[in-house]
Amino acid sequence: MPRSHIHRYRVAFVDCDPAQIVHFSNYFRWFDTASREFFTACGVPSWRDTERDSGIIGTPLVDAQASFRNPATYGEDLDIESWVEAWNTKSFVMRHVARRGDTVIAEGREVRVFAVREAGDPTRIRAVPIPAAWRALCE
Amino acid sequence: MPRSHIHRYRVAFVDCDPAQIVHFSNYFRWFDTASREFFTACGVPSWRDTERDSGIIGTPLVDAQASFRNPATYGEDLDIESWVEAWNTKSFVMRHVARRGDTVIAEGREVRVFAVREAGDPTRIRAVPIPAAWRALCE
Amino acid sequence: MPRSHIHRYRVAFVDCDPAQIVHFSNYFRWFDTASREFFTACGVPSWRDTERDSGIIGTPLVDAQASFRNPATYGEDLDIESWVEAWNTKSFVMRHVARRGDTVIAEGREVRVFAVREAGDPTRIRAVPIPAAWRALCE
Amino acid sequence: MPRSHIHRYRVAFVDCDPAQIVHFSNYFRWFDTASREFFTACGVPSWRDTERDSGIIGTPLVDAQASFRNPATYGEDLDIESWVEAWNTKSFVMRHVARRGDTVIAEGREVRVFAVREAGDPTRIRAVPIPAAWRALCE
Repeated sequence: MPRSHIHRYRVAFVDCDPAQIVHFSNYFRWFDTASREFFTACGVPSWRDTERDSGIIGTPLVDAQASFRNPATYGEDLDIESWVEAWNTKSFVMRHVARRGDTVIAEGREVRVFAVREAGDPTRIRAVPIPAAWRALCE
Repeated sequence: MPRSHIHRYRVAFVDCDPAQIVHFSNYFRWFDTASREFFTACGVPSWRDTERDSGIIGTPLVDAQASFRNPATYGEDLDIESWVEAWNTKSFVMRHVARRGDTVIAEGREVRVFAVREAGDPTRIRAVPIPAAWRALCE
Repeated sequence: MPRSHIHRYRVAFVDCDPAQIVHFSNYFRWFDTASREFFTACGVPSWRDTERDSGIIGTPLVDAQASFRNPATYGEDLDIESWVEAWNTKSFVMRHVARRGDTVIAEGREVRVFAVREAGDPTRIRAVPIPAAWRALCE
Repeated sequence: MPRSHIHRYRVAFVDCDPAQIVHFSNYFRWFDTASREFFTACGVPSWRDTERDSGIIGTPLVDAQASFRNPATYGEDLDIESWVEAWNTKSFVMRHVARRGDTVIAEGREVRVFAVREAGDPTRIRAVPIPAAWRALCE
């Protein structure tokens, strides 16, 4: 069983749309936050520190996918469970499940890379091999 | 060739994150807006009008996926091309490609349904068969 | 001393902009959420319930103002303290202070009204007198 | 009469909340974007270029205020007119008016500074005197 982390979030009024329910795009934002909270819980330094020390600016996404099982609305607490499903040489796969109590609200899958900036153009980035020490912290 | 529509959006400062590039979650927001702009261009009424006339509140998502090909940053114009790839009985598949000039920035795929509210609980929704007249407008 | 409530929020990566700090617009979102959390803590029902029972859809803003004292960034916890500073016949004034530990990060002031929808046009709203029972809960 | 600029934005579904109208926090985001569009129209370089050339990361806000005159909803076009109302030594005041046709929807006022990063801590910033050449472009 890989290491996992649960991030709790209370849905806000502003997260909901005229259909009265969470706008789906917010799940991607929350899964992204849950990814960073997972890394923090595992002991991976902040991206500010990693950029200063090794140039790594974070784990940008190559691909993201989510399925929306049940609607949620404001005032409800969501527990987002996150773990790494697969480690490749330069990319890894994160999984997320958002639950309200026992009800699955949404499930997500992200393919991410560790990235540095291209020299000379701060808006261009490229993937680097996954740092072994951080992978070890997260397994 | 199915009907398609192009929605132009200029990336804003607030859309970009500490990595200096667009936060990926925004592509899902923009694809969602491009879906609605597609419907508007095809002649489908606003969801306000459809809710009043037939109870249909819009086209919530069952599943969303996107691939991020190249980073974009603020001040750049993105052209998002959208079309319906497949029509099923109760769901349909929208596709989106965001380009900056000739460069593909991101590609998206959404599975959507036409939905009405459950009687008695405005935050519960259920799918209804795709209205044939609107499908005809969009093909 | 009026009743007050503290809402804690951990700043997310997506809340920060290319300057590496929280984009100021988020403070307005968080103050809005803190307002709703204040009402919940005081026992005011959800706007879903109030809309069904009395037509009141919430407390839209007439005016909002904030001062930004110090920057904050992701991974930091903010404690947002909220209270009602003044009750008028049809409007009230909420105040918010966001702190990181002892450091004031931002201060906000909102003028709000209790509102119902105009008959016949769900996107038009109008203020109603402040319900005395809810005011009593919040004082 | 100071120089002004008009930025057009079409309100999106995701910008609207369960009250069916634009969530007020979005006006602050759009005024911020309108500020940057104003600078671009006047010939001020992107903050990416200014950070590289002079260390200036942009014009963070010290204070923001807005009044909400009429609700707006998705599918509507807003024209946001922006100008600088006052230039001080280290700060300046921007004004914005958002209109839908002839109807004023919202008015905003921002106090901004030109800022650089503190040496040694990228998340700390400080104001610098307003560059005379850029002020001249914007008057």
